[in-house]
Order: sequence, then C-alpha cells, then structure tokens
Amino acid sequence: MKYCSHCGSPHLRITVPEGDTHPRQVCQDCRTIHYHNPKVVTGCLPVWEDRVLLCRRAIEPAYGWWNVPSGYLENGESVADGARREVREEAAAEVEIDYLITLYNIERINQVYLQFVGLLVDGVYGVGPESLECRLFTEKEIPWNDIAFTSSKFTLRNYFRDRRTNGKTLFRGSYPDEGTPIR
Amino acid sequence: MKYCSHCGSPHLRITVPEGDTHPRQVCQDCRTIHYHNPKVVTGCLPVWEDRVLLCRRAIEPAYGWWNVPSGYLENGESVADGARREVREEAAAEVEIDYLITLYNIERINQVYLQFVGLLVDGVYGVGPESLECRLFTEKEIPWNDIAFTSSKFTLRNYFRDRRTNGKTLFRGSYPDEGTPIR
Repeated sequence: MKYCSHCGSPHLRITVPEGDTHPRQVCQDCRTIHYHNPKVVTGCLPVWEDRVLLCRRAIEPAYGWWNVPSGYLENGESVADGARREVREEAAAEVEIDYLITLYNIERINQVYLQFVGLLVDGVYGVGPESLECRLFTEKEIPWNDIAFTSSKFTLRNYFRDRRTNGKTLFRGSYPDEGTPIR
Repeated sequence: MKYCSHCGSPHLRITVPEGDTHPRQVCQDCRTIHYHNPKVVTGCLPVWEDRVLLCRRAIEPAYGWWNVPSGYLENGESVADGARREVREEAAAEVEIDYLITLYNIERINQVYLQFVGLLVDGVYGVGPESLECRLFTEKEIPWNDIAFTSSKFTLRNYFRDRRTNGKTLFRGSYPDEGTPIR
C-alpha cells in the first residue's frame, strides 16, 4: 500500500498503534490503521473410485503444471462453498465435500491452505476455463514432478496415506517443514 | 476502499475484470485490481483437567463478555502459532495445541474461524492485557448467556460433545446454521 485507501494521502508510516502488538501502516493524515492479513486458499481433491482428479493450469503462476483445484476464498462464501466453486471453475465438475484433509501454512507469502477431499459426483468432469486439461489419476500415475504447488503435493501425499489406513485425517503443516519444495 | 492504494486515484470502479468471475474494485487510472478477501480468526480453547479457560474481554466488541481466546491471524504466522499468541495475549498462558475442533464461517462479515483445543501447560494462567479476568470453568459452570460470539459457543458446545464421546472431531458450520446467535 503506497497511498491511504481511505483518504488518498501518501503519508503512510509503519508504526505500532497504541494498544497493539504489531507494526501497521498508519495514515498520518486521517489516522486510519491499515491491517494486512493472510489469505485463505480453499480447494478440494475430487475422488472417483481409486482415482483423483487433477487439473493442468491454464493460468499463471505455474502455467502447465498439475494442481488440486484451489483458489482464493472470496468474500461472502464459506470455505466449503469456495472449494466447490474452484472445482467447478477448474474441472467443470461437482463434488460432495467429504472431509478436511489439509491445513497448510505458507507464512512467507501469507497464505493458509484449507483443502478438502470430495466425492466427484457421477464421475463426471470437463475442462474449466482455468485449465488446459483435467484427468483422473491412480496413485501410481500421479505426475509427482509436474505438480504445481507444495500444498497440492502435501494434500496428495496425505490423501494416499489416509487411503492406505482407511483414515480421514486432518494434516497440519507449514512450508517447508512438512511439505517438500518442488519448484 | 475509497482511493487506489497503489496510485492514490479516487477513480475506482466496481467491475468484473477480464477472465475473472467476480466484481472487483479496479482503478481507472493505474488499472490495479483490488482484491478483498475473508480474514482468518484463529483461537484455542485451553483445557485443564475437567475445565476450560475463558477470558472476559477488556476490549470492544463485546466488552465484558466471555470468550475463547481468539483473534485475527497475522501476516507471517501459522494458524497454530496465531492461536498460541492469542492465548498468551488474552490469558498470559501457554498451550500445547491438541486438535482443530472448529471451522466456522461467518460469510456476512467475511470471517473464517479456526479454533483448536489445547492443553493448558501446567494449568498456569494469568490475565492478559486484553482481558478483564480469566477463569477455568467446568461444563456446568459455563456462563452460556454471557458468551461473546457464536463462534465461541459453537466451539464450547462441540468440545463438551467431543468430551462425552472421547472424540477429537472437527466441526464445520456457518453462522447461523449451526451456531446459535446469542447477541
């Protein structure tokens, strides 16, 4: 933020407001305190029989790489609704949310990933406008070296772990502690 | 946002950018697209033997009401670190995170609550600068009519449900569907 979004002033200063514990951008003219907070990335891994649905990204970043359908949570929607919307946008598919598998933090870029496992309704999918292609993969077919984000790898690896133990676990991690950086 | 935070222009227009699906504030001078997204409120219910720790708020909103220690997740921290920080700020206590019990959406005000259950280390607590008092409560002692937020009520009710079944469940809800509005 270079200008105060409340009054347009360029006189922003980073300072700890009275009673606060963190430095904030504070407008020296209108005194507005500007808070900047992490964003939620919500997504869902669609499952059909022994396979999972991945989408090859048609947008940057990571154009051409495979991904678990995910994106920023929008104002006015729940985390689960956002996950369903992302599956629609990327894979033209409907999912029934099963369980939350991933709480994954990337503190460096202020992102919190919340990813569900969902049942791909009727096994039907297409290719959404944000994807080059979509495909169902068995565990052995997963293109581990072409997965777009560590969050996707985290979710995929844990999903197959769950599958072997018949579990429905929530895995919690922070980049790069429990995720493997792949890019 | 009344002024573009990138160039200071007052010429913001709400429009759907090309390739986007949602209306955004777009600066008509520098073309910056301004995204506004939900915020994460992170917290932890500290548990000691058969009691849970609540804090009576010394700050608005809900001054004087009892609350599960919670607050906005800050840039640069993980959800669990944020929860531990909130317990420190409100109850001058340390917790060992046990499990995530709450994913609770309040879509109307663009909030996502993530609340853990934690073990109160050594049963020690004080009164943080954001609290009037802190106290351990058994289930029977919970001041249900003086709880600050539906999210707190949601977490408390579900925690005692878990306790009866020896479960460690993640409960998912959206205001007011599964929470009871109390204020």
